[in-house]
Amino acid sequence: MIDVQKSFDTRNINIDQVGVKNIKHPIQIRERCGKQQHTVASFNMYVGLPHQFKGTHMSRFVEMLNEHEDEITVQSFMQMAEEMIGRLDAESGYIEMTFPYFVIKPAPVSEIKSLLDYQVTFISRIDGQEKNTMLIKVVVPVTSLCPCSKEISDYGAHNQRSSVTLTVQANRFLWIEDLIDIVEKQASCEIYGVLKRPDEKYVTEKAYDNPKFVEDIVRDIALVLNDCDKVTSYTVESENFESIHNHSAFALIQRNKQHEDKSDKKRIV
Amino acid sequence: MIDVQKSFDTRNINIDQVGVKNIKHPIQIRERCGKQQHTVASFNMYVGLPHQFKGTHMSRFVEMLNEHEDEITVQSFMQMAEEMIGRLDAESGYIEMTFPYFVIKPAPVSEIKSLLDYQVTFISRIDGQEKNTMLIKVVVPVTSLCPCSKEISDYGAHNQRSSVTLTVQANRFLWIEDLIDIVEKQASCEIYGVLKRPDEKYVTEKAYDNPKFVEDIVRDIALVLNDCDKVTSYTVESENFESIHNHSAFALIQRNKQHEDKSDKKRIV
Amino acid sequence: MIDVQKSFDTRNINIDQVGVKNIKHPIQIRERCGKQQHTVASFNMYVGLPHQFKGTHMSRFVEMLNEHEDEITVQSFMQMAEEMIGRLDAESGYIEMTFPYFVIKPAPVSEIKSLLDYQVTFISRIDGQEKNTMLIKVVVPVTSLCPCSKEISDYGAHNQRSSVTLTVQANRFLWIEDLIDIVEKQASCEIYGVLKRPDEKYVTEKAYDNPKFVEDIVRDIALVLNDCDKVTSYTVESENFESIHNHSAFALIQRNKQHEDKSDKKRIV
Amino acid sequence: MIDVQKSFDTRNINIDQVGVKNIKHPIQIRERCGKQQHTVASFNMYVGLPHQFKGTHMSRFVEMLNEHEDEITVQSFMQMAEEMIGRLDAESGYIEMTFPYFVIKPAPVSEIKSLLDYQVTFISRIDGQEKNTMLIKVVVPVTSLCPCSKEISDYGAHNQRSSVTLTVQANRFLWIEDLIDIVEKQASCEIYGVLKRPDEKYVTEKAYDNPKFVEDIVRDIALVLNDCDKVTSYTVESENFESIHNHSAFALIQRNKQHEDKSDKKRIV
Repeated sequence: MIDVQKSFDTRNINIDQVGVKNIKHPIQIRERCGKQQHTVASFNMYVGLPHQFKGTHMSRFVEMLNEHEDEITVQSFMQMAEEMIGRLDAESGYIEMTFPYFVIKPAPVSEIKSLLDYQVTFISRIDGQEKNTMLIKVVVPVTSLCPCSKEISDYGAHNQRSSVTLTVQANRFLWIEDLIDIVEKQASCEIYGVLKRPDEKYVTEKAYDNPKFVEDIVRDIALVLNDCDKVTSYTVESENFESIHNHSAFALIQRNKQHEDKSDKKRIV
Repeated sequence: MIDVQKSFDTRNINIDQVGVKNIKHPIQIRERCGKQQHTVASFNMYVGLPHQFKGTHMSRFVEMLNEHEDEITVQSFMQMAEEMIGRLDAESGYIEMTFPYFVIKPAPVSEIKSLLDYQVTFISRIDGQEKNTMLIKVVVPVTSLCPCSKEISDYGAHNQRSSVTLTVQANRFLWIEDLIDIVEKQASCEIYGVLKRPDEKYVTEKAYDNPKFVEDIVRDIALVLNDCDKVTSYTVESENFESIHNHSAFALIQRNKQHEDKSDKKRIV
Repeated sequence: MIDVQKSFDTRNINIDQVGVKNIKHPIQIRERCGKQQHTVASFNMYVGLPHQFKGTHMSRFVEMLNEHEDEITVQSFMQMAEEMIGRLDAESGYIEMTFPYFVIKPAPVSEIKSLLDYQVTFISRIDGQEKNTMLIKVVVPVTSLCPCSKEISDYGAHNQRSSVTLTVQANRFLWIEDLIDIVEKQASCEIYGVLKRPDEKYVTEKAYDNPKFVEDIVRDIALVLNDCDKVTSYTVESENFESIHNHSAFALIQRNKQHEDKSDKKRIV
Repeated sequence: MIDVQKSFDTRNINIDQVGVKNIKHPIQIRERCGKQQHTVASFNMYVGLPHQFKGTHMSRFVEMLNEHEDEITVQSFMQMAEEMIGRLDAESGYIEMTFPYFVIKPAPVSEIKSLLDYQVTFISRIDGQEKNTMLIKVVVPVTSLCPCSKEISDYGAHNQRSSVTLTVQANRFLWIEDLIDIVEKQASCEIYGVLKRPDEKYVTEKAYDNPKFVEDIVRDIALVLNDCDKVTSYTVESENFESIHNHSAFALIQRNKQHEDKSDKKRIV
């Protein structure tokens, strides 16, 4: 049977990324506490295709995924990128998986335990010029309470759920939970699955005592990341689903500690 | 060219709904203030197919849509359902269009005007047993402030954006704006596009003065609808995007004033 | 601390459904082959609230979820509905969980195994008049190939991915896999995670040999369900993401074998 | 009333982007044929915030939007970015609007006219170092037919809807319709709102005569863009919603004609 994909291509155009997108697969992730967590990820897997080949071999990406039934760690995920490059005869590769991740949290007063879900993405990238790099992204839901509303009102203050997205590149190992902690500590208040009445009193008053603009949230997280030697570059975004509007307030800070000059700054599009 | 759809079908199974789904088309809607509003709708258009026909004629639905460039009112939308039945040789039909709808609102203190967007759906339904019926659905974003949080806390109260969905069947004409008004008046506070500082003080204090559970919002709207003679049946739902959790609080009340006995109640699935 | 929710409500309006919506939780499902599958579900949990109570106790729903870490089967899921009714002092209840579910499928020729993901929903419902009822819904991706396009064209035929949604109420036990099988056998061709070239030839030719309109898919599935004694009522829908249009073709058949008279038919809205 | 946002910030951290996200507003776009089209856009509007300011003034973004009721062209959209910078006392700004855009297309044989909808995004960006730049993005639905499936099968070939996303930066004026044309001409076949039977025969046979991998689609579009002097940089992506899988095939090519050296290449994340 003829292999159309392998035939010679005369257009002389390299393809930056080609592969499979939005394919679901069950995974296991090691938690900071040592246990393994079962969850379900959505994968995007791409390689660079040199100009002389008509097509890549799509089925090999999916075969690779189906051979990985074991626990996926930061390390094994990075190996998957290398394996992908090898199997597809490529020089560059990009693999990304996004999954819900659960953390057990005790309520602040009653200490009743419940799960909270976060959206996590691992990205592993290899290209000819730099070695394998790995990004971790966490999306953390928090409470934000508006400092202006508190200041100008005789009582009360509008507050809302915010979604903080933190993406980091690190030079040493970081747990997902480490990144979640950094975000939650800088919000007006963190959120929980179960809150009994004494807990609800606590989170209400804590948010009121701790008002933050969307600008404050990203700046306070940036301050922590600037001091964290393990983190070499980061993007932190907050989207506040305003309780008084039908749109969001948004802020973003991006920093690459290794290349501080403006010209190297990653373009935000 | 053979008409496969028209051929005789021997399986002896009627199809309840067949047609086109999720097709976008620009529309014009008459506003309560008399102006016409341009917006974009997503349509679902179905007919019942008697058992003897192999298929319906999908292109006729889309042709019909492309012949309607004029203003769509509640009346002309109901005529579209009848026209669809006629063109497709069907005895029952269902047509639904969902669109963003904009209302100019002055801010509560500064009176600066801005648009707020609502999601609106018109549904028109004809079947052999009953005459053409029409449903209007509005999705209205509002502020809700938790009575429990206010009661038990020394200061502050958690609040959030809520999405209230009201679906009504009426025996007389109702404007979209009439339904929006009913919902907004029963929230802890209504929301706005633009709020200057004096407005923000107003909405913060108003919500704090007016705490409502998700249960209160749907009950207070139900009270108004029970007293409104034009409305013959309704469903009212509220989803509160809790600022202290990563899930929503939800409540729903459904009532058909014409057939109050339990057995006729529409099944909620 | 005062329990605001428990206070007496004078509005005299029952609430049909009140509870928590869109809360994620890890679950385990027993597969037909005997193994347990780990996956992640999104839950909606509601009870009916009698008119005399101001509010329900939202935290109890989430507490209940956090106490269930074990395998969830059809049986244990139905027990959760009863437990919910008990804990919330309610007479009616509704619990729904939606999750990705994976099945290992061998490719049709090469027999290479890969996972395919389906979206599954369990719904359990208790009300005062009828005993606990259970619905299972599966969303099955398949290939559909247009009979008209094949008939009128000299070569080729447009085909596309379709999404078939089957919801059944049964009087005896049914596996998720049983429902998936019913759907996949009636499509132009079933789909797979991994297909090597001989497999791709097989599925291409099988779909071409087996053209089906969206009407044919739902009718052929209805024929099977009509003959299946275990199934007492069903809804089958197919949405074909047409490769020649930017909209979908859609068809739906709904049947309750126990109450065949038209007046009892569930309203489709 | 105190202006909290204006107060001095001691954290010494600039914010790259701060503003409003996901705000809907009606717009008018000039069509290539000279007419004006009414549609609805979703806006994101951000400015850079210097380190010394605690916050930006969110209401000004929304006020600006509400003052623009007139037709929006590429030119007036670029002026909005400059106006935003001015009003917010900022040195950099980013404004983006995404909207459905309709084009009248005659069917290929019957010539019956119908609308087809495309998703379009305008992005305007100003920063201190470079002058105002403008990007246009179009998402174009097309038919793709698999060359491998055609080659190895005795009859038929799997095909599907694909979504091609083209983003360009240009040095001279380009119509939205110009970009749509470039994409549609390189697909296996373009798609239509209404197709009668002779049209359906035409598109079926045309796609079969014109098989393209996802790689072919992006390469053939890249060839055209490489020859187009008006386009100075581009990204072209295709996502094929495979009819034989539950995942997509994907390919992407990115090129900046002005800075060809690898180090300046925009990082793809």
